[in-house]
Amino acid sequence: MNLNSVDGGFIAGLEAQLPEGVLRKVEARYLEEPRGRYRGQAGVMALPQTTEQVSVLLRAANVARVPVVPYGGGTGLVGGQVMVEGPLPLVISMERMRAVRAVYPQENVLVAEAGAILADVQAAAQEAGRLFPLSLASEGSAQVGGNLSTNAGGVNVLRYGNARELCLGLEAVLPSGDIWQGLSRLRKDNTGYDLRGLLIGAEGTLGIITAAALKLSPIPAARGTAIFVVKSPQAALAILSLARDRLGEGISAFELIHRQGLEFLSETLPQLRQPFAAPPEWSVLVELGLAGGIDPEAELADLFEVALEAGHALDGVIAQSEAQRQELWTVREQIPEANRLVGSVVSHDISVPLSAIPEFIVRAGERIAQLGDFRINCFGHLGDGNLHYNVFPAVGRRREDYESQRGEVQQVVHDLVHEMSGSISAEHGVGRMKADDIERYGDPVRLAAMRAIKQALDPNGILNPGAVLKA
Amino acid sequence: MNLNSVDGGFIAGLEAQLPEGVLRKVEARYLEEPRGRYRGQAGVMALPQTTEQVSVLLRAANVARVPVVPYGGGTGLVGGQVMVEGPLPLVISMERMRAVRAVYPQENVLVAEAGAILADVQAAAQEAGRLFPLSLASEGSAQVGGNLSTNAGGVNVLRYGNARELCLGLEAVLPSGDIWQGLSRLRKDNTGYDLRGLLIGAEGTLGIITAAALKLSPIPAARGTAIFVVKSPQAALAILSLARDRLGEGISAFELIHRQGLEFLSETLPQLRQPFAAPPEWSVLVELGLAGGIDPEAELADLFEVALEAGHALDGVIAQSEAQRQELWTVREQIPEANRLVGSVVSHDISVPLSAIPEFIVRAGERIAQLGDFRINCFGHLGDGNLHYNVFPAVGRRREDYESQRGEVQQVVHDLVHEMSGSISAEHGVGRMKADDIERYGDPVRLAAMRAIKQALDPNGILNPGAVLKA
Repeated sequence: MNLNSVDGGFIAGLEAQLPEGVLRKVEARYLEEPRGRYRGQAGVMALPQTTEQVSVLLRAANVARVPVVPYGGGTGLVGGQVMVEGPLPLVISMERMRAVRAVYPQENVLVAEAGAILADVQAAAQEAGRLFPLSLASEGSAQVGGNLSTNAGGVNVLRYGNARELCLGLEAVLPSGDIWQGLSRLRKDNTGYDLRGLLIGAEGTLGIITAAALKLSPIPAARGTAIFVVKSPQAALAILSLARDRLGEGISAFELIHRQGLEFLSETLPQLRQPFAAPPEWSVLVELGLAGGIDPEAELADLFEVALEAGHALDGVIAQSEAQRQELWTVREQIPEANRLVGSVVSHDISVPLSAIPEFIVRAGERIAQLGDFRINCFGHLGDGNLHYNVFPAVGRRREDYESQRGEVQQVVHDLVHEMSGSISAEHGVGRMKADDIERYGDPVRLAAMRAIKQALDPNGILNPGAVLKA
Repeated sequence: MNLNSVDGGFIAGLEAQLPEGVLRKVEARYLEEPRGRYRGQAGVMALPQTTEQVSVLLRAANVARVPVVPYGGGTGLVGGQVMVEGPLPLVISMERMRAVRAVYPQENVLVAEAGAILADVQAAAQEAGRLFPLSLASEGSAQVGGNLSTNAGGVNVLRYGNARELCLGLEAVLPSGDIWQGLSRLRKDNTGYDLRGLLIGAEGTLGIITAAALKLSPIPAARGTAIFVVKSPQAALAILSLARDRLGEGISAFELIHRQGLEFLSETLPQLRQPFAAPPEWSVLVELGLAGGIDPEAELADLFEVALEAGHALDGVIAQSEAQRQELWTVREQIPEANRLVGSVVSHDISVPLSAIPEFIVRAGERIAQLGDFRINCFGHLGDGNLHYNVFPAVGRRREDYESQRGEVQQVVHDLVHEMSGSISAEHGVGRMKADDIERYGDPVRLAAMRAIKQALDPNGILNPGAVLKA
């Protein structure tokens, strides 16, 4: 691919077409990413205010064959937002396109620009008496454009689906600079190929999403939250099955918690109140969101009773107030922060078929034990088959001690995931971190189709080079 | 596109690679379609039994540049299953690949081959205590491969989504003959572009789906069905809003029925029992599927009470038994049959943003009245914004009398849909019938992207030429 660095001529050409303030010097924070694994580089930044400006930017970059890195909230965990080598790119940050353009409560639709912060979109939906169910740890800074580009998951996928399922239509600029006016508010539209679904999850390599029509849901009339101590991951799945039989789609979240995560919380965030005096080996956080007329606390109590009878549950706490609900959620939500403070050797964002989870946990533990002395915090979105399988130094050792083992540990985990028909990137995406991995583990026919699609839509390869597909 | 007719050499080459019985003489029924608008042609048929045989067929066709028409249950309404002109194609019917390969009740997943009849898939799910919610009039003969290729909709989209949302993974053969092993049972897998979503709804123009991992749901503990007489379509939407506020996702179907449909039923199927002595101008069929502990009949009674108070509902029938539920559904489900018996001048499968529906109905009626004397049966999936807007001869006239007006009526309806940001094919797809229409109404940037994708994945253009994109 023959790409060129941003240069003075390129910048001057853009300046002539764009209002003052769109082009900026590159600030260091746009070249960092949360895990500190990648350090980006850039020739110039743009902060467009309109879709037309994005179009001008891409058209110029395409003609000059200048690489372009689309930048959202910067919260991605796989290096998709920073280009670490090659010609100096144009970084386009969407932060000034953050309007909620319209809310249609009767249609359960909200139209937001790509730069809108996820929490602001949630709030706008709430204000209209509706729920935008996408919810994840970084929602206070992540932007919906980035959420869509990475097909974000989070804690409510079990009930509401991934970002792709929450989007009805897109407005996007293709690498040519052409604007696709696809902001459909329709639930049903079978007039051709699913370009929407293709751009979602493409991590900015096929086009830049500038706005989206998002699907809202009714706000459940009543919510209830509990943490059950379970005998094993297998028992947790049995409880999920029981809960589904009783409550249908009423289960909004079903999150696995391991003792290790609670111990990390005690170590690093001792002020945080925990539900059990002694951290249980395995527990699950269950969230219900139910229609009017049903009492979620009573349902949780019934569920617990049945699970206890069956020997699946050993103990439990059911929130009796909104404050207690928040307290239980805080435990779950602070686990990633505790992980960060402890410092992992390597983290994995994997999924396997739901029924294979217990076996995966056993086998992965065995294989890692063969490599050395580690602590494992395995937690996450059990209801989706999605685990964050994070590996930490043994007590008294530092992550630096394991630097040479990182790759080995990761390969052991990913090999096992692959053997068990799982995914090595369940929700975080490929970015630059896993571009090699999908070549290793991905279906070759699909990869060839992906390359053909990339070539077809971005023949000069200007968009986010090196992300998803190796350059 | 330089494509070649099937010839003796092509057939002999395939016979050498395939077991006896795969290649067949073409039977007339594979060249027909339900509306009798298109008459297909073919050089030879294949009834493969394995994915590998499909691969052999496509590889040979790709080398010989022979067009291929994938054939499912033959129930498509837009001519996607018949090639009416050009070189004689190979028709591949999937009917012998009809196994339900596996059911994973705990995972809510079922893996079926493309030729499995939709009703058989529903039954297999039911047997495992689960629901496969895709449901449509032709489910007794439609095949899941065709349902996926057309991204089928039906009566439960409101709650469960279109076919695309009901599919986790695919096995498919690409035009090259390469087999994509993508039968993922994962809820979350962000390892690259959404090839699954792209093949779904591509109407067999990008690949042939051979098997699918389908998403199952819990069976609602209790169901309830009612028909409410409503003051207007606007009142129907108000009731939908009320119902959503009270029952969340518990509403499985919300179907609009017009007086004209009930009158057609009286005319053509007089033995069928109707819920009201005099057919009401507008009514809605409401179906609830609720978790245990709630009584759907009581919920429907409460909803009716509130809707009556507010002046939205005028009368109502709530089914008091399973037999009555079936009776109400039969009314809704027999409307297409009554339509067929009366014989439409032209049918439309359109969607507009939900809140625009009342205005659409008024304006479309006005515009058609200007063209002449017609009867209009406007009914369908109101909850999805999807109406079947079918136009019939006035009393005492025949459809043949209007032959010259068909195009005009259709254009008036489609123009209005387009003005109102709707879709001219909400659920039936493009096929050959609407390939011109999407060129007229479609976003040109999206169309160009679709053409680029088609060229990238099927460079010789062998797959279902003329469907979706004009040849």
